[in-house]
Order: sequence, then C-alpha cells, then structure tokens
Amino acid sequence: MSGGRLSMESGGGAASTPRTLPYYVAFSQLLGLTVVAMTGAWLGLYRGGIAWESALQFNVHPLCMVIGLVFLQGDALLVYRVFRNEAKRTTKVLHGVLHVFALIIALVGLVAVFDYHKKNGYADLYSLHSWCGILVFVLYFVQWIVGFSFFLFPGASFSLRSRYRPQHVFFGATIFLLSVGTALLGLKEALLFKLGADYSKFEPEGVLANTLGLLLVCFGGVVPYILTRAEWKRPSQAEEQALSMDFKTLTEGDSPSSQ
Amino acid sequence: MSGGRLSMESGGGAASTPRTLPYYVAFSQLLGLTVVAMTGAWLGLYRGGIAWESALQFNVHPLCMVIGLVFLQGDALLVYRVFRNEAKRTTKVLHGVLHVFALIIALVGLVAVFDYHKKNGYADLYSLHSWCGILVFVLYFVQWIVGFSFFLFPGASFSLRSRYRPQHVFFGATIFLLSVGTALLGLKEALLFKLGADYSKFEPEGVLANTLGLLLVCFGGVVPYILTRAEWKRPSQAEEQALSMDFKTLTEGDSPSSQ
Repeated sequence: MSGGRLSMESGGGAASTPRTLPYYVAFSQLLGLTVVAMTGAWLGLYRGGIAWESALQFNVHPLCMVIGLVFLQGDALLVYRVFRNEAKRTTKVLHGVLHVFALIIALVGLVAVFDYHKKNGYADLYSLHSWCGILVFVLYFVQWIVGFSFFLFPGASFSLRSRYRPQHVFFGATIFLLSVGTALLGLKEALLFKLGADYSKFEPEGVLANTLGLLLVCFGGVVPYILTRAEWKRPSQAEEQALSMDFKTLTEGDSPSSQ
Repeated sequence: MSGGRLSMESGGGAASTPRTLPYYVAFSQLLGLTVVAMTGAWLGLYRGGIAWESALQFNVHPLCMVIGLVFLQGDALLVYRVFRNEAKRTTKVLHGVLHVFALIIALVGLVAVFDYHKKNGYADLYSLHSWCGILVFVLYFVQWIVGFSFFLFPGASFSLRSRYRPQHVFFGATIFLLSVGTALLGLKEALLFKLGADYSKFEPEGVLANTLGLLLVCFGGVVPYILTRAEWKRPSQAEEQALSMDFKTLTEGDSPSSQ
C-alpha cells in the first residue's frame, strides 16, 4: 500500500515482469488445480462419483462451485497481474471471458443442487452455507452488471471508471473470498451429514476433506496476496496514462505532461 | 489502490478526517457489537448460558473467540483509520494493547474448549474448524512476534520497517478474515451437532445462528473496506515523512525535500 506511488512512478517505463511474480502465479495455479483435483478425488473415492440423472447429481454441485467460483474466479482476478504487459483491452476481455465461464459453471452447480433437493423432497435454503451462497450469487450478479456497464460498455467516462475501479476491485476480492468461505461451509456440512460422530475418529474421508479445506484457504490467501503487492500492479499503458492524467488533473491540478 | 498517490500527496496537509469515514466506523462498531450481543443471546437462549465449572464450559469458547479474534482483532486493525490524526506512537501502542486483549481473551476461549473436551473424553483437533483455528493461532502468534520486533522494539531501521509493513498489513487482514471464516465453521458445526435434521425445518435457533453468521460476514467485509480505501489512509506525520523520504531516496533517487 505504501508503495502505491512507487508502482505508478515506475509504471511509465519499459514493459517488464517482476522477478518473483511468475513463481507466485505458478504456485497459485498449482494450488488451484490441486484443489479441483482433490475435490474430484473426494467425490470419486468417498461419494460414488458424478452423474446428472441419479442420486449422484448432488456431487455436481461441489465440483462445479470449486471449478467456477473458486478456481476460475480466482484466475479471472489474476489476469491483470499475469498479463500485466498486454494491452488493457485484451486483458479486460480475458477477465470477462473467465468470469463468463465461472458464472456458467456455477449456474450448472446451482441447478444441480436445487434439482437434487426437489427430486428428493429436501428443504432449500435453510443452512448458513446456502444463505452465504445466495449472498455470493447476488453480489456476483450485481458486480457483473455494474462491471460490464462501466468497463466493457464504451459509454462510461474515464473519471467515472477511475472512481468506480477501486470499488470493483474491492468487491471482486470480497466475492472471491466469500466464495471460498462458502465452499468451506459446504464441505463441513457434507462431512457432518455423512460422517456424524465418526468425523472425530479421524476417518480417511475427514482427513482428506480437512486437507482440501486448508488448501482452499491457501488458494484464498495466495490470490489476494498477488493482487495486493503494490510492486506487482499493472504498469500504466497508453490507454491508462490518459486516464491517470485525467484523474490527476481533476484531483491535483497537475499538468498532464508531468508523467 | 489507484488513489495511492493521491492519499500520499494530500497527506502532508493539515489534520482532517474524511467526511464519510466516521459513518463507516460507526457502522462497523454497531455491527461488531451486534455480533457479540447476538452470540451471547444465542448461547443464553439456546445453549443454557455460560459457566466455567460445568457442562456450560464449552460455551465460553464461542463467546471468547468472537469477542477476541473477531471484534477486538477487527478494531485493532481499524485504529490506524479511527485515530488517523493522532501521533503514530500513540496509535501503535493502542493497536498493540487491543491485540493483547484479543490474544488473552482468545487464549481463555482456547483453554475452555480443550478443557471441556478433556473432561468429557472428546477427541481434539479432528475437524476443519479446529484445523483452521490452529492455523489462525500459529499465524497470529508469528505475526505478534514479528510485528513486535519490527515496530515496537526500537532496533529496526526505517527501511526495514517500510519493507515489512505491507506484509504485516496483508497478514493482519488475512488472519482477521481467517478468524471470521473459522467462526462461521464453528457456528455451523455447533448447529449441525445439535439440530441435525431439524436444521432444515427452519428452527428458531438455526435462523438466529444463520443471521449471526451473515452479520459476521458483514463485519468481515466492512473492516477490510475501511482499511483499503486509499483516501482514508493515515496522512503522513512527521515521523513517517522521515521514513517515506528515506524510502523515496532509496528507491527513486528523488530529493528528500520534494514533499
């Protein structure tokens, strides 16, 4: 945070990638893929696998949510650091495309659980997991609409975008972290429903799922770590320089030629 | 984030408080106190209240954790925004004092649950809630030791402090959010153990606890929101200006008189 000025100052220079950033990104991807694989392994080994037209339909829910709202959503946030020297427009489109995939996969996961509940006569939306999940969906939907209108729709002015950007970044990170938290609650619920008192006997399923939970926590920590390093922020490109000058002129009264 | 430069530029001016900050702080305190009161109400109404030397000893655990690791820890992070015009030393000591209270109260809560498990012959540390809780304690302990050595012990140099500060801030926010997440897992565990299948019947206890969970999520969102607003950051005071000049000189080669 204190390096905010530094990153903006050095942003005008030649395109370059900070030395350690690729290692952190590689680590985040390894973590994210391990989380997805381990969710699959948990469902395959202890829950009978996945199928839509059977009692296994429920299992579509955790897998889709982990792929969509955790892994892909996390990666959608990271594109501005991974492709920090690409044109802003390209990165923005990739950010949007990853969020489209995340949303579609999450919707499949949502339909799976409601359909499963309906077929089995189970009550909907009674648990803290489901309340948090609905909150995630509402926030994600609003973020989608507002983000699209400000950043992909060509109408919004530079100064409007620059004022909205910090809010978009904050709520993006919040929705991602709330998705991770909701996944943990769901995992815990699935364990307690099935294992009950056996959970305390260190059953292999419990140990596997707890490890999966900790890996989810780590993924939920590494993504914001990469996002918040001031020295890893995107260097300002031509399009953004115009914006930052506009912003500076408005707020500081500086000459636009100072950068 | 993009306003980082702005906040540093305007930091040299007269002491002032941003117009809307007090409302957000007041809202965070209202939320935090409601969370504490509601935890007490939940334990009082549905769990028989609190006592150390009885079966009610368990109930000491959630109350202490919510007061210590959620409410007081959150407030410890906020002191740099609430007392943004006080001397840095005063604010730092207050930050430390709040963390001392948070740690002591959390330790009482930790002893309560281990002692309760021991008296009743229950297994320890088998659940995802307990694994996350231990992770929180380890991180909190390390953060305490490192933070104390760098910021309260007079030996560390300005440049060392300025390099460690963003890490301290990031891990402080991470530990706080992980504490909130762990509290949600614990709440969920307590509900499923007691209510079981009745949870799906919208029992009053379930609805109250779910609401408490959502309020915990809100508190866990408002605190980082206040912390990350660039325009609400602490204005640089005399002590910090020396530091920021030292930092600027090292990294940019600017003249120290430029601010």
